[in-house]
Amino acid sequence: MAGLFITFDGLEGSGKSTQIQRLKEWLEQAGHEVVATREPGGTDNAETLRNLLVSGDTAAWSPVSECLIMNAARSDHLERLIRPALAEGKIVLCDRFMDSTRAYQGGGGKLPMADILAIERSVVGETVPDVTFLFDLDPAIGLGRAGKRNAGHDNSGHGEGGQASEDRFERKGPEYHAAVRDVFRQIATDEPDRCILIDAALPIDSVTLALHKALQSRGIPG
Amino acid sequence: MAGLFITFDGLEGSGKSTQIQRLKEWLEQAGHEVVATREPGGTDNAETLRNLLVSGDTAAWSPVSECLIMNAARSDHLERLIRPALAEGKIVLCDRFMDSTRAYQGGGGKLPMADILAIERSVVGETVPDVTFLFDLDPAIGLGRAGKRNAGHDNSGHGEGGQASEDRFERKGPEYHAAVRDVFRQIATDEPDRCILIDAALPIDSVTLALHKALQSRGIPG
Repeated sequence: MAGLFITFDGLEGSGKSTQIQRLKEWLEQAGHEVVATREPGGTDNAETLRNLLVSGDTAAWSPVSECLIMNAARSDHLERLIRPALAEGKIVLCDRFMDSTRAYQGGGGKLPMADILAIERSVVGETVPDVTFLFDLDPAIGLGRAGKRNAGHDNSGHGEGGQASEDRFERKGPEYHAAVRDVFRQIATDEPDRCILIDAALPIDSVTLALHKALQSRGIPG
Repeated sequence: MAGLFITFDGLEGSGKSTQIQRLKEWLEQAGHEVVATREPGGTDNAETLRNLLVSGDTAAWSPVSECLIMNAARSDHLERLIRPALAEGKIVLCDRFMDSTRAYQGGGGKLPMADILAIERSVVGETVPDVTFLFDLDPAIGLGRAGKRNAGHDNSGHGEGGQASEDRFERKGPEYHAAVRDVFRQIATDEPDRCILIDAALPIDSVTLALHKALQSRGIPG
């Protein structure tokens, strides 16, 4: 049995991690084995690289370095966690994946998209997500939520003991985040077979229902 | 005044760092400002990435991850040290650069060279070395020297307090290092304007003389 690879992307504070937790339970109740993971991170090596990137000065790393380190982490994550899980027939739910690199380093960081896509192809290869939910939200709302979360010292969104300073990208300013959102919306337009744009301003239960409907229309959980 | 970018590449134990130190003094005596640096490393960020790569299990990182992390370090090094120094008219002597990625991750790690060169172009851009010395040596001899150096706890080659465990690449085995050497030799054949193959089995003074002659024939130190 082939597994299923579902990714969730969008701005900080758009509610991805809450929905991933709910979807995990829903799919498990239907009898599936589910692995919930995140990027950057998901393996020991990738978490080490994550720690370099998500804190410190906003200018600590250039967008080029960010893109390369994100992809190094992704390569490790794919090789050691995602591909083995898919090969065992599991459903992998991943909080952020390749679309974040396009949006943050390409849109926000203004790297040439051709360079980003060339690296993406060499790292991701055939392991393109089956379904990608793009959580769309006004950056001002998302960053407001994320800011509250940081103030509450629980911004990891993964229940792993929040690290209060994991906000390097959130501090990059409104113009950066507007460009990030634009790229996410453009991806949804360009790749409608893979990507589903989700209105993340809706109530939590409405978003959950939208995810269920989108998956059911594709025969999932099956 | 435009600076000059000279890189030194080759297998471990081929005597690069000794020659870099000698060349630095020779160029300084001729009145040049010289910056000696190394890869992976050379800036705080890049040294952090170096520390991830040069120790631990040989399989700790895949060749893909190695290539991306090396290039992330290179991007930081170029942006924050090499390009500014060249812009100030300095001579930059760098122990390892892009040819090591081609040789180790391409030759040894068997990554597709087209992928490596695509990333190289996006990171190095116009900052291709003016001169590259490729130190050619039988891997068995070089690794023997490097092994002795490691045993003596001074394998950094940079007088910065050797870290005895910086031998992750040296432990990758004879087949790996034979492939690395082959790529270095091929680069010397393919790019004769930039690259000069140096017989690193010669006595130290003979190698120094060969470097001086090669540079003088190009009008350096001028």
